Amino acid sequence: MALFSRDIKTLDDLFVHTLRDIYYAENQIAKALPDMIAKATEPGLKRGFKVHLDETQNHVARLEEVFRLHGAEVEGIDCPAIDGIMEEADDVVGEVDDKQVMDAALIAAAQAVEHYEITRYGSLIAWAKQLGRNDCAAILQRTLDEEKATDKKLTDMAERVVNLRAAS
Amino acid sequence: MALFSRDIKTLDDLFVHTLRDIYYAENQIAKALPDMIAKATEPGLKRGFKVHLDETQNHVARLEEVFRLHGAEVEGIDCPAIDGIMEEADDVVGEVDDKQVMDAALIAAAQAVEHYEITRYGSLIAWAKQLGRNDCAAILQRTLDEEKATDKKLTDMAERVVNLRAAS
Repeated sequence: MALFSRDIKTLDDLFVHTLRDIYYAENQIAKALPDMIAKATEPGLKRGFKVHLDETQNHVARLEEVFRLHGAEVEGIDCPAIDGIMEEADDVVGEVDDKQVMDAALIAAAQAVEHYEITRYGSLIAWAKQLGRNDCAAILQRTLDEEKATDKKLTDMAERVVNLRAAS
Repeated sequence: MALFSRDIKTLDDLFVHTLRDIYYAENQIAKALPDMIAKATEPGLKRGFKVHLDETQNHVARLEEVFRLHGAEVEGIDCPAIDGIMEEADDVVGEVDDKQVMDAALIAAAQAVEHYEITRYGSLIAWAKQLGRNDCAAILQRTLDEEKATDKKLTDMAERVVNLRAAS
């Protein structure tokens, strides 16, 4: 990231910059999920993370399609936000000394990741529409819908099963 | 943060740990908002950030009340997630070379912060209820409602005014 130049001069520049930010983030999430799958105890949670790993690989492919449609080079840029969210997840998970509490911590960590993606895709879709790129907006919307569905599933699993066991 | 011990043994420990995480985060947000107020151009956005600064100071006070009710020491701990989200905001805002595009970037940055808070308060409320702390849950819910309302206001402002100007 160029720290000493002001390269974002238009909403289009901001759109492409943010695409590159979430492209890096999705790739980092795909790398982190196998470790979360390994650490989860509750079978439903393990399965949910596996499904989300497949979805995440799709999200990466969709972003590559949006780059192509928009005529921008497929490229990631550093994203300190997702790095920080994942560093915090590692820190917390590394401090947990109980399998059931670990599942509760893993869900909270995954939901922090989901909410980061929800906010970024929300901005990207609004900007794409404003830029007349309804084609890009429609692709990004499919991913946003999946991120929201994942977040909801995680809430349900926490409230129905995982938190009860963690508190027992 | 103790990196080499496993101090989180119960859901209660995870609850207090996460309270300390969001307490640090709210304090960092209160410190960052004056700079965002200074950088915003659109009067409605400037005003919105000012209102949110007052709310954030209330959120800090509410967290102190929850610590007291729960018998835990009022204390912040490092929160790499909010540090990363803010570092990214600074990076992006530092690259923008247009006042209207800056407003769009500021809104996206603020919404990333809101979504981090929404996810953390969501987990805290679910855990408080599970731990039989409906008193703490009720206080945290008031803050969550305000964070969600702020996020919605920012979306409305982006879609009604800011993105249109940024694209023109």
